[in-house]
Amino acid sequence: MVEHSLDIMCLNKYGPSSSSSSSSDGEKKLFSKLKVSLTKKYPHKNAQTLSAQYGTNLLLIGVSVMLALAQHGPAVREEHLLTFITVLMLVQLAWMICYMIRRERERSPVPERDAHAGTSWIRGGLTMLALLSLIMDAFRIGYFVGYHSCISAVLGVYPIVHALHTISQVHFLWFHIKDVIKKYETFERFGVIHAVFTNLLLWCNGVMSEAEHFLKNHRRRLTALGYDNITTVEVEPHCNCTTSACSMFSTSLYYLYPFNIEYHIFVSAMLFVMWKNIGRTLDRHCNRKRPSTRSSGLLIGPLAGLLALASSVTVLVVYLIHVEKSEQTREAAISMFYCYGVVMLACMCGASSAGLLVYRLEDWPMDTGANPSRTLDTELLLGSSLGSWLMSWCSVVAAAAAAAGGSSFRWICLAYSLLLVLEKCMQNLFIVESLYRRSREDEPAPPEIFSVMPPYDGIVNRGYETQDKRCAALDAEASENRQGFGRMNGDATVPAGNRLNVTTGRKRQILKNITIFLFMCNVSLWILPAFGCRPQYESVLETETFGFSAWTTVLNVAIPMSLFYRMHSVASLFEVFRKV
Amino acid sequence: MVEHSLDIMCLNKYGPSSSSSSSSDGEKKLFSKLKVSLTKKYPHKNAQTLSAQYGTNLLLIGVSVMLALAQHGPAVREEHLLTFITVLMLVQLAWMICYMIRRERERSPVPERDAHAGTSWIRGGLTMLALLSLIMDAFRIGYFVGYHSCISAVLGVYPIVHALHTISQVHFLWFHIKDVIKKYETFERFGVIHAVFTNLLLWCNGVMSEAEHFLKNHRRRLTALGYDNITTVEVEPHCNCTTSACSMFSTSLYYLYPFNIEYHIFVSAMLFVMWKNIGRTLDRHCNRKRPSTRSSGLLIGPLAGLLALASSVTVLVVYLIHVEKSEQTREAAISMFYCYGVVMLACMCGASSAGLLVYRLEDWPMDTGANPSRTLDTELLLGSSLGSWLMSWCSVVAAAAAAAGGSSFRWICLAYSLLLVLEKCMQNLFIVESLYRRSREDEPAPPEIFSVMPPYDGIVNRGYETQDKRCAALDAEASENRQGFGRMNGDATVPAGNRLNVTTGRKRQILKNITIFLFMCNVSLWILPAFGCRPQYESVLETETFGFSAWTTVLNVAIPMSLFYRMHSVASLFEVFRKV
Repeated sequence: MVEHSLDIMCLNKYGPSSSSSSSSDGEKKLFSKLKVSLTKKYPHKNAQTLSAQYGTNLLLIGVSVMLALAQHGPAVREEHLLTFITVLMLVQLAWMICYMIRRERERSPVPERDAHAGTSWIRGGLTMLALLSLIMDAFRIGYFVGYHSCISAVLGVYPIVHALHTISQVHFLWFHIKDVIKKYETFERFGVIHAVFTNLLLWCNGVMSEAEHFLKNHRRRLTALGYDNITTVEVEPHCNCTTSACSMFSTSLYYLYPFNIEYHIFVSAMLFVMWKNIGRTLDRHCNRKRPSTRSSGLLIGPLAGLLALASSVTVLVVYLIHVEKSEQTREAAISMFYCYGVVMLACMCGASSAGLLVYRLEDWPMDTGANPSRTLDTELLLGSSLGSWLMSWCSVVAAAAAAAGGSSFRWICLAYSLLLVLEKCMQNLFIVESLYRRSREDEPAPPEIFSVMPPYDGIVNRGYETQDKRCAALDAEASENRQGFGRMNGDATVPAGNRLNVTTGRKRQILKNITIFLFMCNVSLWILPAFGCRPQYESVLETETFGFSAWTTVLNVAIPMSLFYRMHSVASLFEVFRKV
Repeated sequence: MVEHSLDIMCLNKYGPSSSSSSSSDGEKKLFSKLKVSLTKKYPHKNAQTLSAQYGTNLLLIGVSVMLALAQHGPAVREEHLLTFITVLMLVQLAWMICYMIRRERERSPVPERDAHAGTSWIRGGLTMLALLSLIMDAFRIGYFVGYHSCISAVLGVYPIVHALHTISQVHFLWFHIKDVIKKYETFERFGVIHAVFTNLLLWCNGVMSEAEHFLKNHRRRLTALGYDNITTVEVEPHCNCTTSACSMFSTSLYYLYPFNIEYHIFVSAMLFVMWKNIGRTLDRHCNRKRPSTRSSGLLIGPLAGLLALASSVTVLVVYLIHVEKSEQTREAAISMFYCYGVVMLACMCGASSAGLLVYRLEDWPMDTGANPSRTLDTELLLGSSLGSWLMSWCSVVAAAAAAAGGSSFRWICLAYSLLLVLEKCMQNLFIVESLYRRSREDEPAPPEIFSVMPPYDGIVNRGYETQDKRCAALDAEASENRQGFGRMNGDATVPAGNRLNVTTGRKRQILKNITIFLFMCNVSLWILPAFGCRPQYESVLETETFGFSAWTTVLNVAIPMSLFYRMHSVASLFEVFRKV
């Protein structure tokens, strides 16, 4: 590492200096030192800080333009924002292509790879999301072709560049996301962080467009029902569509937005892990893949999960149909949603509590080793919970402040909000507990979703060392136990001496069932708001207490965060399932 | 650590089990295991997560009430918020008193203390801020006494409880902030995190009150000048003041708000460090105080800094006088502010660049050891920069979007905004570089402002080990060098062989001067907005581009963050000064 070589240089430099009397020698030394100083490798932390500041400011420029766009003024239009994002995507494209070409040429030595970064299943999932994103780009191109005579050319260029960007990025994810960059580190840091924040900006843009579209429909619906007479700003093109499919394109587009949004935020997180990995030295002992786990004894969990998923889809369809109709059906739809929500959240709380109880009863050891990726997972979980916690507490305050004699709806809403807070807390605890448990004594800590290798420079992870020493000692024992597990699965009558092992096996089954049930519930709770089921916008209580503007702002922030939370929980629960 | 004892239990448990044929024995084992499981110490990470979630939700409840209060509706009033905060303060008071009493009783063994947490100078500074906060409470009590017949009793109880809370907290900071808690860890985690978020909520409340007061004055001024005819919601009491000092109290209160605000946010950060330290094992080798450094050769830096401070105070006074007068004087005051800002920021950029250049020329080694406190410092710096970066980029977008032929004011504003971004970036880089440089080879890394000991469990910080090994080896050399430095200070004609040491001494002088200059500039840039100099609210460009509501929201978030950034930079630069 550069820091160690610097130390050696210092040790040499601060030793007793040899005497030299010539001033020109001194000047030459100073000059050569200056030359060396300005050309040597930029220190790790400084490069990180510099690149982080660059990326952050890039994002903030984009956010400023979006804020101006939200005003719908004449000065800042959608074309300006799309031009900015197109330029960023082109820069990222250029960097990725250079990187991939350089990697192709430098076949030897084989670059180090972090085996835990970007597992196959997550890359597969992202590829599917990317495909849907490409379909979305195709729709945008189709829409442009229809209105090309009166809309800006940027609206045609943007989806083309986005499609190329998506294809290259997927290729990059499959073949280079695991790379641990060791050459041209400072330059690559900028490249990777540029990619992180470009995807983050694309996520922001998607969220904003989708929220605007939702609010437009919401206001139109309220106006139709007679509640609201705010005129919505219509931005339809002035010319006629030259094809017959324009309205089909523009409508279908919004069904694909949720996938596009999740694609960008997940890619952003994966690239962030790659950025953290730059310059790291891998701990080879633990850089091996986890063996796959057998899944048997799964019945209740999957069944209950499928039931939850089916009911969620039903609720979604019924809600979307009835909320557009009359006032009564709208209120009935909203009540139905909240009742469903209360039942669902109560079951999820119960499942998480059961899981936590199992962990308290079980003596599996905790994994106390340093694991930055796990910290990142935990921070993402807790951070993305903030949005819906704020939304829930606002609902609680509104329900508490509502005049006496409020409708029974108020109590359902209160129960829903409190349960939402409780459910997220318990689920977070369950996931964190699972991630911080060592599953078996003879295996290293499993890979996380976003895996960053702990830094080697200056830190030795004793957790890993101790594991390896224990590996040899426990190998024999653990294999004996595994054989025991193998015999016992499905065998009801066992010798009493093996009853503890049976209990452990049963606990694992329980945990697996709980995990898969929670997995499917989180998928359900992602589907509902992603496809338009957002009754919080309809809520009169909060609108009266906080004002329409403030409440809408809270929701516009909380709902995208909640969507990310559900997706991330899905990924975390899948890892927990594999671990158990 | 509990995790290690758990490991030992597992090693015993997963060994070859002894045969036992009686079913009641098995049941007894299960029962005892259940009993042990539910009473044993709660794992470290789970307790952290649980307490963090508790604290976060506490804060979000408060924020929801504040959002409702901002609406000025009949349902949620100031008394409700103050009641909630009073209850939180009382709970914290009770916890602190119990803690202090318990510590008094348990004199042996002496609890471990983190020598780096809460340095004397920072506690001294916080004590001064607390004193000003107590004066503020006295004013509030005075105000209540004047209007007690028609305002809620809560407005009298709150300042009394706040005063008691402040006094106990200061005592706690002086005698217990360094404690590394090892008993009743889970309970204490909740106590400490409760204290963290109570102070954070007090900070939010202070920021909100202060912003509301500022906006009220701002709107009144605009109305007087004929720009705005929005009627402000006046919340004056309905009865007459029974003393002659009510208006004096209510006016003076707002001059003390900045100190109260900074007090709470800094205490919150220190308590957060204490929370992170719970259950940690100290690395005794490096838990020693840093020797004090000599400060000689300081002239240019302090002079320039004092000049900056004097000009800032002048600008503040002139601005506050002239902005209330006519339209012309108002515009002149704003232009004066921006010109001053451009000059100041350009000088600060220059100083930070010079400092970074010195570091590139110097070969002082980097300190690559794990140091969570330093990471916290860096994160706080970068995080609190976000607000003013967003504000600046919004100004840039507004200036770029403004119609052609805009005033020259637009270009000054553009230059100011760009320089503000650049100045913060460069200052952050300079501070991070300074914190990550090892000052002398024979000393361990210096304490950070908010110091958290690296965890011992599972991680050995080789950086510290290597330092100790090097300590012995380099002691002789370093003392020889120090003698050399001592001889050389002030000695112009030196042997050529010692020229490198002279150069190093000179570089240190340059860095000290730069640091002290930046220190005083940051103090100046804190004073200006803290005492009402906020011309961004007057800016027409941004208001037209983003809308009054959005722009005001951005400012209401950005300016408090910027104030915290300046304070934190002041503290960081002081540490850098001591290090150099």
